[in-house]
Amino acid sequence: MGEFELLSRVRDRLGGGERLLLGSGDDASVTLPAGVTATSVDAVVDGVHFRRADYRRLDGVGRKALAAALSDLAAMGVESGEAYVAIGVPADLDDDECLEIVDGMVALSAETGTVLAGGDIVSSPVLFLSVTVVGHAASAEAFVSRAGARPEDSLVVTGELGGAAAGLALLADPKLEDRVADPARLRVRQLEPQPRLAAGHALAEAGATAMIDLSDGLAGDAVHLGEQSGVGLRIDGEAVPLATGAIEVLDAAGGDGLQRCLEGGEDYELLATIPAARFDRAREAVNAAEGIALTAIGEVLGGDEVEVRLPGGRRLKPVRGFDQLARLARQ
Amino acid sequence: MGEFELLSRVRDRLGGGERLLLGSGDDASVTLPAGVTATSVDAVVDGVHFRRADYRRLDGVGRKALAAALSDLAAMGVESGEAYVAIGVPADLDDDECLEIVDGMVALSAETGTVLAGGDIVSSPVLFLSVTVVGHAASAEAFVSRAGARPEDSLVVTGELGGAAAGLALLADPKLEDRVADPARLRVRQLEPQPRLAAGHALAEAGATAMIDLSDGLAGDAVHLGEQSGVGLRIDGEAVPLATGAIEVLDAAGGDGLQRCLEGGEDYELLATIPAARFDRAREAVNAAEGIALTAIGEVLGGDEVEVRLPGGRRLKPVRGFDQLARLARQ
Repeated sequence: MGEFELLSRVRDRLGGGERLLLGSGDDASVTLPAGVTATSVDAVVDGVHFRRADYRRLDGVGRKALAAALSDLAAMGVESGEAYVAIGVPADLDDDECLEIVDGMVALSAETGTVLAGGDIVSSPVLFLSVTVVGHAASAEAFVSRAGARPEDSLVVTGELGGAAAGLALLADPKLEDRVADPARLRVRQLEPQPRLAAGHALAEAGATAMIDLSDGLAGDAVHLGEQSGVGLRIDGEAVPLATGAIEVLDAAGGDGLQRCLEGGEDYELLATIPAARFDRAREAVNAAEGIALTAIGEVLGGDEVEVRLPGGRRLKPVRGFDQLARLARQ
Repeated sequence: MGEFELLSRVRDRLGGGERLLLGSGDDASVTLPAGVTATSVDAVVDGVHFRRADYRRLDGVGRKALAAALSDLAAMGVESGEAYVAIGVPADLDDDECLEIVDGMVALSAETGTVLAGGDIVSSPVLFLSVTVVGHAASAEAFVSRAGARPEDSLVVTGELGGAAAGLALLADPKLEDRVADPARLRVRQLEPQPRLAAGHALAEAGATAMIDLSDGLAGDAVHLGEQSGVGLRIDGEAVPLATGAIEVLDAAGGDGLQRCLEGGEDYELLATIPAARFDRAREAVNAAEGIALTAIGEVLGGDEVEVRLPGGRRLKPVRGFDQLARLARQ
């Protein structure tokens, strides 16, 4: 089909909603915002952030791209509003595959109450998706930034970490499957992460003082949060909840499995700080909202050091990085 | 420099403003919208929408990417608010070149009152920019969609057409320079288009009933406007104001110069419909706001045909397309 027919078929899949006054097909989409909006952009590129060949159906590619962007809204504690996507389409991606990608975004949009409100489709030598998401709140106070952590706050994390890194290792070396009972579950953590929008909103309502999503890895993202808040952080490595089998897979892949769980990115869980007295309420709220655990893994300190304690008195030196596949290639 | 140092240096260049409550460096940028927002996404890819090698300095690449996105806001008749950009950075683009691109966006942002409020920088095998722009208005009635044209409205266009197509031909074949007195001016129309934000706003205030920006070419974009409004259009090819030398260059490049002016994209002028009685006022307002002409080039008709009349009783069959370089390559 031609470019405009493809665009038209994509448009048929886009959403509507109370906030969307004029949808795709005009020069711009017109929306009715709430009092204050949060906007985030996240781009993913084939061969850098994902590998097309790792997906049996390409709807997973669309899901992951949108999930990564929505995860930033989750970390602001805000509900999702609209998403806009630019897709770079290489010549060897046929129209049905392009629509599969859009379908993956449509499905996650529906699950998260997001309106897929517009975008752009262009020719490109490489498949890429650039996703802009917009969340709404009544006032700026409703957002949780990275900057509000205070000494003595508890450091908490949602869900389990290490699954995405283990999933990536499994995709790179299928022989590692022998090391773990449920390799498919780990691969899904890498291929189709879940944005923790409900958990983030629950944490905001429970009084989280700062929050960040774990896209670059716990150790690296903790540094970001500490820097923005002007505080130090202590992380008890042994307290960090890990995905079942992640250590075993990453140990077998080479290197220190625990360390790779703590440094591995793309889990898209949330790292937050919260006054210790509010932790129990927050844990219950996160569990009720999203059915996942909230675990205390350390504490906010004065100073500006991020200290990750490992078993045997070892310390982990936090590294920062993105582009997971590129990093894995260097390992 | 490392990825995070580059990000930090990019952040130093980003803007602030009354609407920006929390800028880049957090999970999302937080803004205070007006009553209603218009959002548009525009992606450009090296080798498809521009050629890096055509730019002496890469600030022009940033300018063009942002200009193409802002042109969509201009066509809504709305003033620009914020811009967000995702940049795919190939390994052979060094950090200074990346900052040049950002500097080009910063310069055009300042000229247009746009706040560059956030974005993403990722590794990519090809240089691409995906730009999301947001404009604000007090109410939905302030926006001019593509859908409001009514029979007997005048069809009007800002500025001069054909310059971008001629500039592209000059870049492809420098020998064509002999055909024209000022080839540099035509190349600039291709390399660094100007979004007509002030003209678009003036047209909206003067009572434009429908508007679209000329990214795909007059003939093709007229079809879009006609379809969205459910009307036919008559365009008098000889009335269309052309950039000086454009016909001569495009004649020499092969094919019919006038036809290529009418079909060539990327002029980023505005095509609008307006009641005939309001044309004089609109022309004065556009000239006062942006220092360019507004020219009546035809009329809105009943039916659904877009008819482009050429000299000698010929008719042009409108074609639609994007990806200018790809189209040129097919010619």
